[in-house]
Amino acid sequence: MPPTLEARAPAPATTRGAGHRLASLTVRGKDRPGIVAAVGSVLGEHGANIVSLDQYSDDPLGGAFFQRTVFGLDHLTAVLPAIEDGLRRRLAADFELEFALRDLSVPQRVAIFASKSDHCLLDLLWRHRRGQLPVTVAMVISNHPDTAEEVRSFGIPFFHVPSCGPDKSAAEAEHLRLLRGNVDFVVLARYMQILSADLIEQLGVPIINIHHSFLPAFVGAGPYARAKERGVKLVGATAHYVTADLDEGPIIEQDVVRISHADSAADLRRRGADVERAVLTRAVQWHSEDRVLRHGNHTIVFA
Amino acid sequence: MPPTLEARAPAPATTRGAGHRLASLTVRGKDRPGIVAAVGSVLGEHGANIVSLDQYSDDPLGGAFFQRTVFGLDHLTAVLPAIEDGLRRRLAADFELEFALRDLSVPQRVAIFASKSDHCLLDLLWRHRRGQLPVTVAMVISNHPDTAEEVRSFGIPFFHVPSCGPDKSAAEAEHLRLLRGNVDFVVLARYMQILSADLIEQLGVPIINIHHSFLPAFVGAGPYARAKERGVKLVGATAHYVTADLDEGPIIEQDVVRISHADSAADLRRRGADVERAVLTRAVQWHSEDRVLRHGNHTIVFA
Amino acid sequence: MPPTLEARAPAPATTRGAGHRLASLTVRGKDRPGIVAAVGSVLGEHGANIVSLDQYSDDPLGGAFFQRTVFGLDHLTAVLPAIEDGLRRRLAADFELEFALRDLSVPQRVAIFASKSDHCLLDLLWRHRRGQLPVTVAMVISNHPDTAEEVRSFGIPFFHVPSCGPDKSAAEAEHLRLLRGNVDFVVLARYMQILSADLIEQLGVPIINIHHSFLPAFVGAGPYARAKERGVKLVGATAHYVTADLDEGPIIEQDVVRISHADSAADLRRRGADVERAVLTRAVQWHSEDRVLRHGNHTIVFA
Amino acid sequence: MPPTLEARAPAPATTRGAGHRLASLTVRGKDRPGIVAAVGSVLGEHGANIVSLDQYSDDPLGGAFFQRTVFGLDHLTAVLPAIEDGLRRRLAADFELEFALRDLSVPQRVAIFASKSDHCLLDLLWRHRRGQLPVTVAMVISNHPDTAEEVRSFGIPFFHVPSCGPDKSAAEAEHLRLLRGNVDFVVLARYMQILSADLIEQLGVPIINIHHSFLPAFVGAGPYARAKERGVKLVGATAHYVTADLDEGPIIEQDVVRISHADSAADLRRRGADVERAVLTRAVQWHSEDRVLRHGNHTIVFA
Repeated sequence: MPPTLEARAPAPATTRGAGHRLASLTVRGKDRPGIVAAVGSVLGEHGANIVSLDQYSDDPLGGAFFQRTVFGLDHLTAVLPAIEDGLRRRLAADFELEFALRDLSVPQRVAIFASKSDHCLLDLLWRHRRGQLPVTVAMVISNHPDTAEEVRSFGIPFFHVPSCGPDKSAAEAEHLRLLRGNVDFVVLARYMQILSADLIEQLGVPIINIHHSFLPAFVGAGPYARAKERGVKLVGATAHYVTADLDEGPIIEQDVVRISHADSAADLRRRGADVERAVLTRAVQWHSEDRVLRHGNHTIVFA
Repeated sequence: MPPTLEARAPAPATTRGAGHRLASLTVRGKDRPGIVAAVGSVLGEHGANIVSLDQYSDDPLGGAFFQRTVFGLDHLTAVLPAIEDGLRRRLAADFELEFALRDLSVPQRVAIFASKSDHCLLDLLWRHRRGQLPVTVAMVISNHPDTAEEVRSFGIPFFHVPSCGPDKSAAEAEHLRLLRGNVDFVVLARYMQILSADLIEQLGVPIINIHHSFLPAFVGAGPYARAKERGVKLVGATAHYVTADLDEGPIIEQDVVRISHADSAADLRRRGADVERAVLTRAVQWHSEDRVLRHGNHTIVFA
Repeated sequence: MPPTLEARAPAPATTRGAGHRLASLTVRGKDRPGIVAAVGSVLGEHGANIVSLDQYSDDPLGGAFFQRTVFGLDHLTAVLPAIEDGLRRRLAADFELEFALRDLSVPQRVAIFASKSDHCLLDLLWRHRRGQLPVTVAMVISNHPDTAEEVRSFGIPFFHVPSCGPDKSAAEAEHLRLLRGNVDFVVLARYMQILSADLIEQLGVPIINIHHSFLPAFVGAGPYARAKERGVKLVGATAHYVTADLDEGPIIEQDVVRISHADSAADLRRRGADVERAVLTRAVQWHSEDRVLRHGNHTIVFA
Repeated sequence: MPPTLEARAPAPATTRGAGHRLASLTVRGKDRPGIVAAVGSVLGEHGANIVSLDQYSDDPLGGAFFQRTVFGLDHLTAVLPAIEDGLRRRLAADFELEFALRDLSVPQRVAIFASKSDHCLLDLLWRHRRGQLPVTVAMVISNHPDTAEEVRSFGIPFFHVPSCGPDKSAAEAEHLRLLRGNVDFVVLARYMQILSADLIEQLGVPIINIHHSFLPAFVGAGPYARAKERGVKLVGATAHYVTADLDEGPIIEQDVVRISHADSAADLRRRGADVERAVLTRAVQWHSEDRVLRHGNHTIVFA
């Protein structure tokens, strides 16, 4: 009797560090000797096992220091406050560093904004359902009702908030009402409306956006038609944090795909959509695992 | 008033050759001088506009000849039989070539087989719904009931055909009953059962499969765990036509993704799944557009 | 006795179409039914074996038509004038098409311009020496003497033509004296001086340039430092034909490489150099095989 | 007066950590809480600035621990012995860890082995000459005299050591005489002879090899011809450490390049050569910067 393919399938693997609970610690500030030892000793005092540690200094002589540490610990919830206290005394006091400590078993809560295009939205929802994105999708907000049924089939609340005219104040008030206190970050999954600087500020949580990218860039209307006309050989996408300066916030991730003269402008848009969903998914994944640290107008990504 | 992003979106582009109907012509056989002229003159006599033409000869001195032509024509349905007749007289008689002529506005009918994993299945269904795959998905057949509801939400028939023991005869009889006469090709979208040589022969239509690929290859059980242990830096996927020789049929498409030591065996499987769906989608797309010509144990892909 | 690795090495393979001489035919003009048949019948009348044929029409209903055909023929040199004559009568007269016919066994002559950086220059010279670039490198011209000895070690003439001030007329007069009648195209392999519109026109041969590319683009001074500051995740390169509009001519090829926050501006420049040489080499290869057809401000690349 | 391109070129950037001397510290052993703090405190006691720190643990509960730290220090040479002493006391005694400390301003010495193919050899020598590879190329050893002149034009000693018959003892004795005490690692840059297990052991330094890779693998003679016949869509290369088990040592780096049906076996070999040199260069770069840690039959690469 021949073995079936299923019989040959690998057994489910356990992820790293399973067995006890994990937390992430991100640290940033002015680089000075001794930071690594200080962090290490605080964690060590509480019996934490460091699973991974990434560090980057943009200039070891007084530049900016960035560190991401993942550590495991029995009774994590009980001990975390004591670790936080220890870090505050050592890092904040001695080194004037900022730090963030997070229990990785508590997923971050995210709201996804979408419009009519569903390629980025569905890829996020599929991965979330498969347990591949360590987030809770709190809600989907769209200025179009089209994807309502699909979103709700994933068991996720869908809110239709129309927003089409120049005056977005009513829509944005509704956004704030829905989001405030309910989400840790927001993802614009091809949401085709601009968020006002005021909304961005009032929300007070990171916002991740995705947009197409070309070499050279085509600013303004009809970028795909112009890319086609110009005969570019690559189309790409950029995921970035949203700032008041549209499409100019810190870049999280980029990628491109090869095209040819035989691709129509519609083909370019379709290929571009494939890159967009891949790039946005990676950006959301990394952000939700605390792998992305913002610094000025760029990012440190411990991917 | 600032323009919205939506206002800046490109206008819908028309695909190449829209405006009149398109047909594809694939030709193969022993290479000899004059084939191109013969094909061109038959098409020209009927006023066909050649949209694209790809040709390959593995040895111009008597090797094998392959050609794919897409042409447009008013009143295509009416004229196609006359073209077919002309080609038969010229190509089959003078050059002993085989050819296939197909009205591209009539989508090929496909059945998708799946098991529990939904990453390949959903990507195909979703692209189909967006109008990106020029096929009719006639049905989904699975040996597990898990994806029934999701599949049916796309408006596509789902059939649960259990198949777990060594004796697959009952399942395969059911497969034949469902498929015969109803589909032009079959896609195994991570279907984890082996099709018998008998079923493959009786079906008599092309069958496309997807499987993971590594450098070096890991034959047998637990390939991801072994790839992890061996420290490979790439994981990949291969889409191929199914023959009686398991996983060894003509390759249609391959791709890889970069991994690192920090990826667990579960991460490898997840990254591998991303490549699988991308590779299978490309293979299905190309097959459904008559871009893939089989020859011996390899393929000519006019992508 | 164990086999050596050398014993396991593959036997030299013959390239396609070896055995008799090959010629390329490129055709362009307004698309109309019957072109393919006309080309095929002229070639067929002279007993030519078509090795490969690529065709593209940007709109089959009266758009622009592009075709590249490679064919083999015994006694090619003797028969070529008759083929040219036949094509002129059929294509130029009946269809108002332009065409170019070239004996592929006669390599195109190229002059390479360089400055101090040698990464693009050396890659081209080395591939040429290995017989991978079907060109004759007629000369290398540089505004710096640094690479003279290295270039000459490849058996290739090196000319030092200083060009540093605002007045380039003396240098360009020397360029014209060296190049006119001696080369079929020119490659700027990181030549860091701008060619005047006047020189470009007087040369009258295609000129290929390579430059770095970013998403987003950084126009002006210090692009690598600014790309670093902006935190881009990809650096790339673009090879294009030179027109009077600096860095804006038709794109031949592009590629990118992934970078991270840990790469310094110097690292970016080094990674960028790797992409530059790869992209320029591909562009030169394709151009020298008549695979690149210019059309307006873009290219059709039958790669 | 228009600015020249040269005027627009970026100013030379300084690499990270320039200004004072850098050292690398790699640590490995059984993972236990407190290692990071211990390393950090020893470095901190001597005023070292940690420039970068990468860490990986394959299982935080008693798995294997790997760390690479780069740190800067004034008077590095003078202080290094004291640091080494401190680490020995803390790491070796308290944690039973192994560590290696190296002054990064002292380049590692490498011998490159080659045969007739020069693509990998020249790429290494070019990059070395440009200051991109932090090594001293002590010598090139080849079993063919062909590349002697070229190698010596780089100012590097070339030794011709014939090795063709089954009995390699004379050649290997000569290898040992040339290498022993003179090199820190060896690179086989398409050296087409097998090193005996005896030579590998007596050399006692890491040996890096490059070989082609396919999916699926083609073991034995004529891999490119067989890959062509099988219609693979990717060809690749693998760089690995040499062990007595031929082509099976720990993988350092891999990559692939896309090919098509139109590529001949010779094209495949040429494309394969491009990947080989890129992959080998990365492997040598990473090894020479102490970024590669071997563990069992795989590697941890802090790239």
